[in-house]
Amino acid sequence: MATPTYKLSEIAEKLGVKLVFKDDAEDIVITGINTLEEAGPTELSFLANPKYAAQLASTKAGAVIVRPEHEGDVVRALVTENPYPMFAQALTLFTQPQGSFSGISHLACVSPEAQLGEGCTVYPFTYIAPRAVLGKGCTIFPGCYIGEDCELGDGCVLYPRVVLMAGTKVGDFCVFQPGAVIGAEGFGFARTGEGIKKVPQIGRVVMGEHVEVGANAAIDRAALSTTVVGDGTCIDNLVQIGHNVRIGKDCLIVSQVGISGSTHVGDNVTMAGQAGVAGHLHIGNNSTIGPQAGVAKDIAEGQVVGGSPTVDYNTYLRNATLMPKLPELFKRVARIEKELGHKPITVSKTDRSLVTLWNRWLSMMHLKK
Amino acid sequence: MATPTYKLSEIAEKLGVKLVFKDDAEDIVITGINTLEEAGPTELSFLANPKYAAQLASTKAGAVIVRPEHEGDVVRALVTENPYPMFAQALTLFTQPQGSFSGISHLACVSPEAQLGEGCTVYPFTYIAPRAVLGKGCTIFPGCYIGEDCELGDGCVLYPRVVLMAGTKVGDFCVFQPGAVIGAEGFGFARTGEGIKKVPQIGRVVMGEHVEVGANAAIDRAALSTTVVGDGTCIDNLVQIGHNVRIGKDCLIVSQVGISGSTHVGDNVTMAGQAGVAGHLHIGNNSTIGPQAGVAKDIAEGQVVGGSPTVDYNTYLRNATLMPKLPELFKRVARIEKELGHKPITVSKTDRSLVTLWNRWLSMMHLKK
Amino acid sequence: MATPTYKLSEIAEKLGVKLVFKDDAEDIVITGINTLEEAGPTELSFLANPKYAAQLASTKAGAVIVRPEHEGDVVRALVTENPYPMFAQALTLFTQPQGSFSGISHLACVSPEAQLGEGCTVYPFTYIAPRAVLGKGCTIFPGCYIGEDCELGDGCVLYPRVVLMAGTKVGDFCVFQPGAVIGAEGFGFARTGEGIKKVPQIGRVVMGEHVEVGANAAIDRAALSTTVVGDGTCIDNLVQIGHNVRIGKDCLIVSQVGISGSTHVGDNVTMAGQAGVAGHLHIGNNSTIGPQAGVAKDIAEGQVVGGSPTVDYNTYLRNATLMPKLPELFKRVARIEKELGHKPITVSKTDRSLVTLWNRWLSMMHLKK
Repeated sequence: MATPTYKLSEIAEKLGVKLVFKDDAEDIVITGINTLEEAGPTELSFLANPKYAAQLASTKAGAVIVRPEHEGDVVRALVTENPYPMFAQALTLFTQPQGSFSGISHLACVSPEAQLGEGCTVYPFTYIAPRAVLGKGCTIFPGCYIGEDCELGDGCVLYPRVVLMAGTKVGDFCVFQPGAVIGAEGFGFARTGEGIKKVPQIGRVVMGEHVEVGANAAIDRAALSTTVVGDGTCIDNLVQIGHNVRIGKDCLIVSQVGISGSTHVGDNVTMAGQAGVAGHLHIGNNSTIGPQAGVAKDIAEGQVVGGSPTVDYNTYLRNATLMPKLPELFKRVARIEKELGHKPITVSKTDRSLVTLWNRWLSMMHLKK
Repeated sequence: MATPTYKLSEIAEKLGVKLVFKDDAEDIVITGINTLEEAGPTELSFLANPKYAAQLASTKAGAVIVRPEHEGDVVRALVTENPYPMFAQALTLFTQPQGSFSGISHLACVSPEAQLGEGCTVYPFTYIAPRAVLGKGCTIFPGCYIGEDCELGDGCVLYPRVVLMAGTKVGDFCVFQPGAVIGAEGFGFARTGEGIKKVPQIGRVVMGEHVEVGANAAIDRAALSTTVVGDGTCIDNLVQIGHNVRIGKDCLIVSQVGISGSTHVGDNVTMAGQAGVAGHLHIGNNSTIGPQAGVAKDIAEGQVVGGSPTVDYNTYLRNATLMPKLPELFKRVARIEKELGHKPITVSKTDRSLVTLWNRWLSMMHLKK
Repeated sequence: MATPTYKLSEIAEKLGVKLVFKDDAEDIVITGINTLEEAGPTELSFLANPKYAAQLASTKAGAVIVRPEHEGDVVRALVTENPYPMFAQALTLFTQPQGSFSGISHLACVSPEAQLGEGCTVYPFTYIAPRAVLGKGCTIFPGCYIGEDCELGDGCVLYPRVVLMAGTKVGDFCVFQPGAVIGAEGFGFARTGEGIKKVPQIGRVVMGEHVEVGANAAIDRAALSTTVVGDGTCIDNLVQIGHNVRIGKDCLIVSQVGISGSTHVGDNVTMAGQAGVAGHLHIGNNSTIGPQAGVAKDIAEGQVVGGSPTVDYNTYLRNATLMPKLPELFKRVARIEKELGHKPITVSKTDRSLVTLWNRWLSMMHLKK
């Protein structure tokens, strides 16, 4: 994507930071931002972590955002007490919105009964159903579906192929990455004497402001009442949120996490990638759930857990350290038992069916017969 | 979504249950159904589990479906021996189909060589290829793709952006949540002397009746022959079904499960969320696979397993209980060895690289340097 | 899908292999290819693995690709030293491209500023943005989105509903299964004093030649610079690739794997299903990561690992064998301690909350109260 360029002096002015030239270095045109390792002579970089100060000597960056003590270490320095926020601010100068279309495409299908706020953009091939209400300045990319009675706040962005099923309510400035599905039927099935019975899912999804939803993520509508996602919560790609889940504010839900039905998650919770949470649990505020963790019980406020099923953080780390020693432990106990005249514990040879598991997962054997 | 309303007396009549008013309570208009905790004065609720009988005193519900012994405990009671099925039936009164469009949109692209049964609805921006055959009363939402020679039974519903690749066969009354992809190419790649060789995937997917497929789920077509999903099987969001998998009837496959190629799954099997099953296995009828389980061997009929790789249910639970004690076990064995004059088992300090794992998963460090 | 048919003699000629008839068997018409168990009298099968030679007696296949020593074991034999590659070659005779449309649909929205190479096919309802450049002979199925400044090589296939966000670069002959999303915003969020701060994602995705991407998979664009996928790498369904990840050549990334931001993966790496890799790691060439593995540290060239967190392959297998014996080990150590007059190790009863986990995951309890 063609990104804008700026004179370095212009950037310094926009950020309101001091610009320091070494020797006879001159003002240059900056074409982008990059890491110290990857930056080229027309790129701006930054040093936020003193640990990487050594890279200042080797970087090819045309200019670097640094703290005062480093202003002499680079050819061109933008000097500030807090390089990281300044870097993030500089990034916004080089950020361009996706998409160059504006207005309401005549190739879109917008119900006459739908209401669009001022300054909305609707791309071709998008379907907006009767009684849907969009706030001001929303951008709806191609292939989106906005069902009956949906309500969107101001400034929402739906990237291509986002689906909001009927009745979904979304606050201001929410962003949906491509392929996200909000408000599909929850997995409401009960085994009965006469096979599986489908339980109608008559609820909806309600989201706060500044919520972000990742690519191909799924948030199911409630069986009854609402599935809720609080203000500022960020949900990564391929995450599954079950029906009637309630998530608080400012949570980070990393990719491929699954949260089962009716679990309530507090504020400022972090869930690492591929973690799974059972249904009907309470996850306390400010708690942290580790990668691939399997949460089976309520998590207290501020608790940090890992493993499947989860244990506290320190036990998780300790067990991870001990597991490689487990074979030795078994041998040693057997030796002790022998010495004490007990019949020693015996363990069968390593289960070769596990090797099969590997072959089966790792190779495409099944066509090779 | 605007849901219908009914007089309570009307609901009692429709369900064929006795309506009992306490004191001078009168008939009211019911606007929806909700749980005992969440129901408001115009909502109907239910008590299926006696354990929650105490909530009858505090509920604000306008009326409650209860067993005879509780008919006096609420202002307005719908009295039945089996509250839960009656609740599910009541729900259907408040369930509305998604979408208000009907007919064949002139903004859809339907091949003249495709055959659509009576009463089908095809929304805008849907593509139906030559020789596709749809039964009666199918509803195809916007952005769907139905490939060449697909066959759909009667009453199928494809929510927005569902893809059925060429040759997919689907029985009556199947439901596909948004973004489901049926019949994509299986992962058929073999490492050879000359790098990776792609193995053409010439099979298809065949599904029975009343099959449900979740949002953004993927069911691959067979390399040869067919990938099969049996009648009444329900597949949740983001599930992966590999090529040549055969699944029986009335299975529940919960979100984010993955089933590798050529595995055969029996009838009435339940797989909990995020479980993974290796390829070429047989999973017996009525078996249960726990959350995040990793299945490496065949599972016998009725077996219940958990863990990765799986062990039987009781061992899984027992080990989960023992794991937090593992550090103590190591210490104690070391103490015994010391006492017996053996060189005691030693374990390195907790591996700090694991802390790094956490930081790496949990924080967005990499932009902070 | 209507597949072509060939006379067996015709197939023998096309493959350049010897055709041997047993007794008075005659040439027949072959309608497809199948396994020895499933093949019918008009289908061709193959024996690649001597282990299955017994099936030659029972197969109903009309003809079989076999090694010379088996040419007398079947009615009609195609004889070759290497049956498997010959089978794969035969498959290509029966493979048909998906889709029967060709040309640029007037129902597609192609920017006049986009450049399409000779012989491209663009289906209805696809959006191609300004400055997108497609090579020769690309096929873009319905509902795709190709953003500004994307560059595609020759012969790329985008199945329905594939999204390439602005600036994505793709080499020749890449294949994208339905619903794949390339170049969505990376998960760039940092917790700050004033809540979560979004870090703009200004990079892009660059892919080599012959890359395959699975259905509903997601590959995020870089925060800075590029996310890279090397030549010949195959990515399965529902895989998540984070921002700034760099993957080498000829890797196989199986379904539901997740790779966190800024991790670098070498060449010829295999990752089995549902494995997760933390961020900022280096995964060496020719290494293998097992199913559901959780990778927390760098992996050396050629290393094979399993478990979460990972241990080396043999330890993984050994521990998997020992885990079912863990309860007995605890009992035996307690017995030893008793005998030595120590206060024996005690473990609480099995934690019933875990049973709750099961019920919660496995049943739809929450509507049953």
